[in-house]
Formats: sequence, C-alpha cells, structure tokens
Amino acid sequence: MNLDILLQQVAFIHEIDKLKYIQRKTRLFNSDRRENDAEHSWHLAVMAITLAEHSNEPIDILKVLKMLLIHDLVEIDSGDVFLYDTIVNHDNTEAERKAAERIFGLLPAKQAKEFVAIWEEFETGDTAEAMFAHSMDRFEPILQNVSNQGGTWTEHNVPYDTVMDKTSKIQHGSKTIWDFTETLIDDSVLKGYIKKPDQE
Amino acid sequence: MNLDILLQQVAFIHEIDKLKYIQRKTRLFNSDRRENDAEHSWHLAVMAITLAEHSNEPIDILKVLKMLLIHDLVEIDSGDVFLYDTIVNHDNTEAERKAAERIFGLLPAKQAKEFVAIWEEFETGDTAEAMFAHSMDRFEPILQNVSNQGGTWTEHNVPYDTVMDKTSKIQHGSKTIWDFTETLIDDSVLKGYIKKPDQE
Ligand SMILES: [Ca+2]
Repeated sequence: MNLDILLQQVAFIHEIDKLKYIQRKTRLFNSDRRENDAEHSWHLAVMAITLAEHSNEPIDILKVLKMLLIHDLVEIDSGDVFLYDTIVNHDNTEAERKAAERIFGLLPAKQAKEFVAIWEEFETGDTAEAMFAHSMDRFEPILQNVSNQGGTWTEHNVPYDTVMDKTSKIQHGSKTIWDFTETLIDDSVLKGYIKKPDQE
Repeated sequence: MNLDILLQQVAFIHEIDKLKYIQRKTRLFNSDRRENDAEHSWHLAVMAITLAEHSNEPIDILKVLKMLLIHDLVEIDSGDVFLYDTIVNHDNTEAERKAAERIFGLLPAKQAKEFVAIWEEFETGDTAEAMFAHSMDRFEPILQNVSNQGGTWTEHNVPYDTVMDKTSKIQHGSKTIWDFTETLIDDSVLKGYIKKPDQE
C-alpha cells in the first residue's frame, strides 16, 4: 500500500472537519438554531438524489453530489457569504481560490486537481450538473425561510426584487422546482415575509 | 408538472432536517463538541469519494454515497446507538424498520421503495458497496478518538478486544485502511487510550 497517499487523504479528512464550525445565516427548519455548512452540504446532497428527476436536462448525479459535498469547503478559510449581502462580492474571489488551493492541496496531487476542477465547475455554473447543484443551494434556504416565518428575508428586510434576482437561477436547473418556488414566494409576499416596493 | 410528487419530496426534505439534532457520542476532531448525525453523514460521504481507490473491490461509488447520506435517517425516530454499547442491540431492529417505513414513506411510493432498498442493503452489509460504506462509518470515529486523546475509548473505558471486534470490519471494505487503522490502534494502546486485558 502507498501509505503516503493515504496519509495525505487523512490530513484532508481531518482538515475539512472545520466546515462544521462555519455558521450560515439561515436557520434549521422551524427553528432558531443556525445551520452550519456541513449540515447544509449534507442536506443539499440528499435533496439532489431526491429531486434529480426534476432537472431540466439529463445529469450525472454523481458529479452533482461531488459538487454539493465539497462546494462550501473554501469557506473554512474565507467564511460564509450571505446570499443577500449586497456589499460582499459573491463571485469566485481571490480569497476563495487561495482557499481551494490550500484545502484541496492537502490531497495527493492528481486528486487535488480533480477536486479543484469539480469546485471550479460548480463556481462557473454553466454545465447541467452545476446548474442543478445551484438550484439545490438556492432552494434549501427558501424552504427554511418559509418554515421560519420569513427567516432571513424578514430578519434582514430583503426586498422582493432581490429575492427574485437571487432565487430565479433555480429555473436554470429545474423549471419544475422554480414554478413551485414562485408559489412559495408569492405566498410569502401575501404573509408579509417579503415586501414588494409598493408595500413599503 | 406533477405537483403532488414534488410536495411529497419536499415533505421528506423538511422531515430529515431533524437528523441535525441527533447527537452522537463521538466528538469533532480535536474538540469537546459532539458531532450530530447530519455532520457525520456529510463527513462519511466526502471520505468515500476521497478514499474510494482503497476499496478491496470495484464499487459503484454513487450507491455508496446514497447509502452514507441516508443510513442514519432512521435515528430520527430510534435515536443514536453507541457503537461500543454492549446492552443495546445494534442489528436491524424492529424500531429501525418502523422508522424507515415512516420516514422514507413520506416520499412518492416508487422512490420510497428505492430508498428503503438502499438502506436495507447498507444494513445487511454484504455487498461491496455496503462493506465499503461500513468501513467509512467505522473509520471516522477512530480518527476522531485518536485526535481527542482517546475520545469515547477513554471516556467509556472500552476494552481493547471490544475496539478490535467493532473496528476490524473495516478490512472487509478496505484492507489498506484497516492496515493503517491497526497502527492507530496500536499507538492508542501505547498512549494508554485503549487498555489491553493484561494492563488492567
Ligand atoms: Ca455558500
């Protein structure tokens, strides 16, 4: 056996434990307790296997799972960026790229390259797999907010247009899930969780 | 779109959030904070994609991931069973079977059947995929205990023979990982984290 390969992999497995300490803004379903990135990544992965049939295009679900399981690891170094934050840049920042190099760089070189490529494909977001993975990443906090009387929408007073702008990307992965999401958003407007401009 | 299908899937996605409240006995790496089942399931899934090359037999890694992502969901109803508990039965209990029927039963019938079959294959444990998945499930707490000065071994005074009995199943999934694990256990005996009978 190549012990060196295994030791590098174990160092990676040890390091990524830190994802369990990265707190998100969103809260668990019907709860006051915030979700961490490891729980979030697990939930998205189960959502993907559950909802795969609703993808607009045929997808390699194994690749989608790999993306969702590792997509937030860079936040170990760069921290969680709140979806509705209007100041911090959400694009593939220099800090995130450095984090990817450091964290995936713990793995054996060939594997590190594979993991970085999967992370980059998710970040770039233009393959069928990346688009479906992004749908999951946007859909989960909507379900959470709906279960928490508006959750982060209410807490941070996020305007309707911003909600639509950030969540409508769901349709690129799944028109079915987006149609359903629109009914949830409409209902959240009716309940006062999201304010339209003319309501302010 | 078949809204009824999607609504059933969303009910399942909502329900499984409860996995984030199921506390395990083991603690995070170098930490006093206990791990929950959702974090655990995420970690095992990433371990599986990282360590797949060490499987004794060729495996369908997508099936392994599905197993690991859903294997603990029954604990939402039946609770976590401590690996080294000598009183509570670890086998596929009646309570776990009922839990599987209730929780997977939230899904559309055809999908519920698929998920139950994956869970049963993991529980039965005799396919190459189930054996590799079990290796991951046994290997993670060993790494955690080693990082926590013996962790649950020390805390619950688990004897050497019990540790060997419970962990040696790793070899059915991966001889490579088991060889490495044996060096970790030997080292843990030297450090006094695990007591051999003649040392008591
Ligand atoms: Ca994120």
